[in-house]
Amino acid sequence: MNDPGVGLNVRVDMPAPPMHGYDVVVGAGALDGLATRVRQAAPAERYALIVPGDIVGLHGARVLSQLRDGGLVVDMLEFAAGEAHKTRAVWASLTDRMLELGLGRDSAVIALGGGVAGDLAGFVAATYMRGIPVVQVPTTLLAMIDAAVGGKTGVDTEAGKNLVGSFHPPRLVIADPLVLRTLSPDELRGGLAEAVKHGAILDADYFAWIAGNAAAILELDAPVLEELVSRSVRIKADVVMEDPLEAGRRAVLNFGHTVAHALELQAGYRLRHGYAVALGMLAEAAAGEGCGVTEGGTMERIAETLHRCELPTSHDIGSVDGLLSIMRLDKKARRTRPRLALLERIGVCARDPAGSWTFEVPEADLTAAVRRALHGGEVV
Amino acid sequence: MNDPGVGLNVRVDMPAPPMHGYDVVVGAGALDGLATRVRQAAPAERYALIVPGDIVGLHGARVLSQLRDGGLVVDMLEFAAGEAHKTRAVWASLTDRMLELGLGRDSAVIALGGGVAGDLAGFVAATYMRGIPVVQVPTTLLAMIDAAVGGKTGVDTEAGKNLVGSFHPPRLVIADPLVLRTLSPDELRGGLAEAVKHGAILDADYFAWIAGNAAAILELDAPVLEELVSRSVRIKADVVMEDPLEAGRRAVLNFGHTVAHALELQAGYRLRHGYAVALGMLAEAAAGEGCGVTEGGTMERIAETLHRCELPTSHDIGSVDGLLSIMRLDKKARRTRPRLALLERIGVCARDPAGSWTFEVPEADLTAAVRRALHGGEVV
Repeated sequence: MNDPGVGLNVRVDMPAPPMHGYDVVVGAGALDGLATRVRQAAPAERYALIVPGDIVGLHGARVLSQLRDGGLVVDMLEFAAGEAHKTRAVWASLTDRMLELGLGRDSAVIALGGGVAGDLAGFVAATYMRGIPVVQVPTTLLAMIDAAVGGKTGVDTEAGKNLVGSFHPPRLVIADPLVLRTLSPDELRGGLAEAVKHGAILDADYFAWIAGNAAAILELDAPVLEELVSRSVRIKADVVMEDPLEAGRRAVLNFGHTVAHALELQAGYRLRHGYAVALGMLAEAAAGEGCGVTEGGTMERIAETLHRCELPTSHDIGSVDGLLSIMRLDKKARRTRPRLALLERIGVCARDPAGSWTFEVPEADLTAAVRRALHGGEVV
Repeated sequence: MNDPGVGLNVRVDMPAPPMHGYDVVVGAGALDGLATRVRQAAPAERYALIVPGDIVGLHGARVLSQLRDGGLVVDMLEFAAGEAHKTRAVWASLTDRMLELGLGRDSAVIALGGGVAGDLAGFVAATYMRGIPVVQVPTTLLAMIDAAVGGKTGVDTEAGKNLVGSFHPPRLVIADPLVLRTLSPDELRGGLAEAVKHGAILDADYFAWIAGNAAAILELDAPVLEELVSRSVRIKADVVMEDPLEAGRRAVLNFGHTVAHALELQAGYRLRHGYAVALGMLAEAAAGEGCGVTEGGTMERIAETLHRCELPTSHDIGSVDGLLSIMRLDKKARRTRPRLALLERIGVCARDPAGSWTFEVPEADLTAAVRRALHGGEVV
């Protein structure tokens, strides 16, 4: 060691996997057992219950007293509801309020609400004193079957959605389908588009089941909602377990989403996410058919199911060129060419010969596909 | 699945450990091979080189052209130097500049500078699009042997230091002791206090070696600096590997730091961190002796070594009660009683009968220890 220039090369290995497994509990009435389950899965000296203002009356107060009755020490922190508040400023202010309350490293966060609450409160937990546990309690269909499972947390910036965040898996997810009966029809349909996607990419039986039960779902039939959430959660969980950090296969969950994000951006986020996903699936199915990856007729089958779910199947996109240039600017795209997750057929996602779960679709094919799928509503 | 109330309990297991191992390369001249090593350990389409303004001239420009000469696509991002700028605002602004430059998920961060640069740029990387790789290139002794190894990243808030952050291990650490020859004597001594701590907690031989080589270290003798950095990095890496997320044993690295943090806060951060650690080790050694955990004479041996290193061994703390009330308010303390990492003797840290690496020291003993160790300078 005393010879100059010899130095040292230390290998720092990380023996303990810091990501842990967690339970996703789906059940009508599951919320009633919340305190006991939270205490078991995320024991902590104190809890911050983070809730958007618009559901404090509907769910927040009830959950707060139930947790306190169960012996937990809980402070409820409200934030202004809506995607517009999923920002670094709100994240910082929630963090500061927890610091003022004196919550230490032995605290945990409980995120109650839709996808915004889960992403935002999850990111607060991910970065509070370098990470404290979070329990996700989703109250919308979209959050139950998508955002709450998988560990993605984050906030939006001026430049785009979810550009700042962490992977921070929850210690527990509690999804109580009875809560869905408080949703507006629009909110329910928005979530349903993601369920259709789960069937389309990985489970043809489930895809058919949704089409056959669309009316019961829209009528908020409790056992049917429970089956819907359970089957979607199972699919999402399987994909996440195989690829927790989105290194490869998890990309299949993006089916429909590349076009959907461009549609949302083009509409200044006045288009509901689930509706954009419905339209995006049509366009990406058409793109897959156009370049010979996807079985012919797939787009029409998706359109049929979306129609039964009362989801949109056509859209006035204005300029197709404008939409494509938004996709070229996607901040997360490799270089500047968008890559799409495509289907082989309903229930089976496609993999390219090199093993990738995404495809680079030639721009001309993409333009033709968007025209065919969305322009003028000729698909239904 | 159709019976109401049956529901589902999905276990989401995480098979792939998302934390990876990494190399810490210590060597005189190691910086010259930076481009090749970065390309191997953190291959990326583009790189953000994050550098505090005060070393852009000294190191930043040279490293930038070297990386570019090596064929990497690099943008250099400056931020205003100093702990006062280790904030969420600067983190957000660095993130936004990377977004404006169009850096995608296939980018990586290179953090060049002292502990502030490493913590801040590391946190930018940890949260950029849910995490991109970071390479740590520390330029101070303190950063080389402490902050750069172990994966802690974060920023300060009004409420205290490092309260917001993540564990985000680097892909590579390059420590070139030749860089230390540009440090001021004060900066070098500040880092040296952490090296003394490494010897004190885990390696009596190293502790004695530092005392014996203090003059050569302070004269910036290259081979001696290389041995210093190598031995400290080895110790830090061993502790981090055993306890990557600071769940237990890693607490031994906090020896001296509970009192040190209180001293820094009391001085409004006008006291250099390394100097506070030097004083903190004396006080905590005295506390350990006072409650019978630490071998008698340990505090004096530490004082002797600090003296040879030209580090402070006495301090006008004003009110001891004031210092203790700051310690009671420590945001990271369990409940409100500070727990200290204590020595058994030089080179061996103490473990309590229950297996914990920290001890709750009665307040009266702590008061007496601070008085004995720091008041009036009677220890040297």
